[in-house]
Amino acid sequence: MYESSHHSCAVNTCRLASWLTGSCGADRRGVKKAMIGLSSYAGVMESPMNSAQEQQPFSPLTNSWSTQQESNENQKPTSVGGFVLVHAGAGYHSESKAKEYKHVCKRACQRAVDRLKAGALAVEAVAAALIELEDSPFTNAGMGSNLNLSGEIECDASIMDGKSLHYGAVGSISGIKNPVVVANRLLSEAQKGKLSAGRIPPCFLVGRGAHDWAVSQGIPPCPSEKMATKFSLSAYKRNKRKMELAEKIDTGHKQTKKRRQSSENENGSGCLDTVGAVVVDLEGNVAAAVSSGGLAMKHPGRVGQAAHYGCGCWAENACNMNPYSTAVSTSGCGEHLIRTMLARECSAAMQSEDAHQALLEAMQNKFISSPFLASEDRVLGGVIVLRCCRCVEAQPSQNIQGILVEFLWSHTTESMCVGYMSAQDSKAKTHISRLPPGTIPGQSLAIEGGVCRLMSVVE
Amino acid sequence: MYESSHHSCAVNTCRLASWLTGSCGADRRGVKKAMIGLSSYAGVMESPMNSAQEQQPFSPLTNSWSTQQESNENQKPTSVGGFVLVHAGAGYHSESKAKEYKHVCKRACQRAVDRLKAGALAVEAVAAALIELEDSPFTNAGMGSNLNLSGEIECDASIMDGKSLHYGAVGSISGIKNPVVVANRLLSEAQKGKLSAGRIPPCFLVGRGAHDWAVSQGIPPCPSEKMATKFSLSAYKRNKRKMELAEKIDTGHKQTKKRRQSSENENGSGCLDTVGAVVVDLEGNVAAAVSSGGLAMKHPGRVGQAAHYGCGCWAENACNMNPYSTAVSTSGCGEHLIRTMLARECSAAMQSEDAHQALLEAMQNKFISSPFLASEDRVLGGVIVLRCCRCVEAQPSQNIQGILVEFLWSHTTESMCVGYMSAQDSKAKTHISRLPPGTIPGQSLAIEGGVCRLMSVVE
Repeated sequence: MYESSHHSCAVNTCRLASWLTGSCGADRRGVKKAMIGLSSYAGVMESPMNSAQEQQPFSPLTNSWSTQQESNENQKPTSVGGFVLVHAGAGYHSESKAKEYKHVCKRACQRAVDRLKAGALAVEAVAAALIELEDSPFTNAGMGSNLNLSGEIECDASIMDGKSLHYGAVGSISGIKNPVVVANRLLSEAQKGKLSAGRIPPCFLVGRGAHDWAVSQGIPPCPSEKMATKFSLSAYKRNKRKMELAEKIDTGHKQTKKRRQSSENENGSGCLDTVGAVVVDLEGNVAAAVSSGGLAMKHPGRVGQAAHYGCGCWAENACNMNPYSTAVSTSGCGEHLIRTMLARECSAAMQSEDAHQALLEAMQNKFISSPFLASEDRVLGGVIVLRCCRCVEAQPSQNIQGILVEFLWSHTTESMCVGYMSAQDSKAKTHISRLPPGTIPGQSLAIEGGVCRLMSVVE
Repeated sequence: MYESSHHSCAVNTCRLASWLTGSCGADRRGVKKAMIGLSSYAGVMESPMNSAQEQQPFSPLTNSWSTQQESNENQKPTSVGGFVLVHAGAGYHSESKAKEYKHVCKRACQRAVDRLKAGALAVEAVAAALIELEDSPFTNAGMGSNLNLSGEIECDASIMDGKSLHYGAVGSISGIKNPVVVANRLLSEAQKGKLSAGRIPPCFLVGRGAHDWAVSQGIPPCPSEKMATKFSLSAYKRNKRKMELAEKIDTGHKQTKKRRQSSENENGSGCLDTVGAVVVDLEGNVAAAVSSGGLAMKHPGRVGQAAHYGCGCWAENACNMNPYSTAVSTSGCGEHLIRTMLARECSAAMQSEDAHQALLEAMQNKFISSPFLASEDRVLGGVIVLRCCRCVEAQPSQNIQGILVEFLWSHTTESMCVGYMSAQDSKAKTHISRLPPGTIPGQSLAIEGGVCRLMSVVE
């Protein structure tokens, strides 16, 4: 299997390529494609790197993952490191909340890296990051989730393993502290094969059935009242008043039963702080996960993108047809992310040569201007993406091999909070990405990212 | 809007192209692609047609839907008919059950055609077909659904409108006679725009929440005991005994807690009779729907492909990028259909020129040999597909215009029951498609279909 020692590695990690950073003002109908601003974010990133220099060593045509795996079969790298990118939601992060979100992202990265250093596979590391994100009372996932119309917490979560391509998800689950743990258990149980009498194990469980299955698997239940926080309860009361007021106004203004368009923009700057993570492990496997308490005041039983296959997360190791391994996790307005199947679309797009351009086009054409959302005036969401391929370094010596990780985030919401860390970093870097001034949430997008090269000595 | 009169139409409907019919023995790993048998099914189909003759008038390059819509803007057809294709499941249909399945398919087609004749859009007609299929005690949907591990009925259903690209789904819903009605209501409510206080309407509801929402919408609840039939109850008891026996054998044979592989083939010839339909309406819009009681003895809360976006059904009208309108509905082992996202994959494949070849390749490469199901020894499922484009007939006169509908079904299960009918037919045709003798379910596939030309006079 893989080596757990890291001491022999030549590490050159998280140097950020300036060509990958920047924010775009993209027109809602996809006409204006030009970059309108390049934001550099000193403080969260290391020395910028020239794009031409960076791109040379990892042409997927000459140094693709699968090619390398075949041609270097007898050369076993001592280690190749690992990398995690997390998000604490695409939505609106006020300056006052920024610190908390960054903190939780930092801790989540650390949890994943701890698991990677202990030799865990990507799927275990990504679950560890999610547990930390869910446990924060500040995120809309697990503890402190949004309350639904009935004042209850119902969570969605899913996880995908790029190696086995297995997937597990729970929807509208109550009374479980960490929904991602249940999703992960479904994934690992499905990998074991059929149940008694040839029954096929489920990959998606919802509601009471999901809760009971979790408990039968030894996952402890958690009283619902312990999962609500002061913040989520007061938000619920505030939202309820707002809703009642809106409905009163609607009834007053309109005699017909026609659908109301009032307060349309409220979700535009609302809290859509679903959480997620993407990981590449020591063996080069990718995994992705996502978890959400769903929209505030949602109807009981509503399932959002976090439990929708292809919508909340996606992970696929490189194969004969795909030179890159890719992992994606999404956040934002569930229905927009579902109908555009954004996670899978972004993953597929990332097989193009230019990662930045591919994500930019995917966000514009498959999300903002998607024919599936033609009737929406604002398309709200964000993604974190990583893609990687093996590469052979020309320098310093021929027996140094590694993984080149390109990581990006993009969002149409006002802001998105991300954190990232490689197994060789002493601590995670965090960042709150914001739309450029003057752009309109739901109609414009920001896109940023970086490159991380994980190198190892081939014996 | 559209014209409801059909009298002025020159109808040339459901003539079957022999090039579209036949069964393929395809190797599990996709090596053997040759046709091993051409089955003709006199009795259910009309005079075979030469492929070359048939293919000429609808080249999507010269006579594409969108091109025609643009170039003939001022010419309004008096009517263009409509067409429905339904399935009562891919699984195993014994000769004794065949008659019942054919009957229900016939009735479902008639229901859809009645709605089409009354001027309904595709989405309404497809829902009408599904209601009939759900109401049959012989199908595994709605009334008479499989019972879960706890002896309860929990249903999944979804519907998609190719015109608006809206989608509605319910998962694990109990106590509602027609789950598709709830899915359709979700779809139509979502089309009305935002809820009060700017809340986004849900597209997917599950469990108790879905049931309560349905009732709040005026859809009457149905006591669970009324939904179980003598047949489903006795099947439950039989399955329970079988399961207990299998678990006893497992415990006896193995001391370890390792996962049992016993009775692996039981689902291979099992009843996976999910139902579904695809429709093209008078305006040329497509819609698709699917409904299922899920696998017998499933865990409570398990949601199958029928409620998974992109997996159970898909419908997309032609647009600038896609020359064909396509609609797909799937049946079979839910987890296999989910992980391969079969409905959406087949829909995307149908944009290729040769419909038969495109579906054959999709079923082989994206299903039987899918890397997502690499660990499965048998891949069980079936699809019904329709695609259509506008075409101008060279004969008998220049002002005759129409829609060319190609309809196909393909399955890896032992059999699949289908029915189809155009609005001009006096009654539906039904057929039970079977794998060729000597082929192995889950490793081979059958593919059949036909062509239906719906013509109208342009004023």
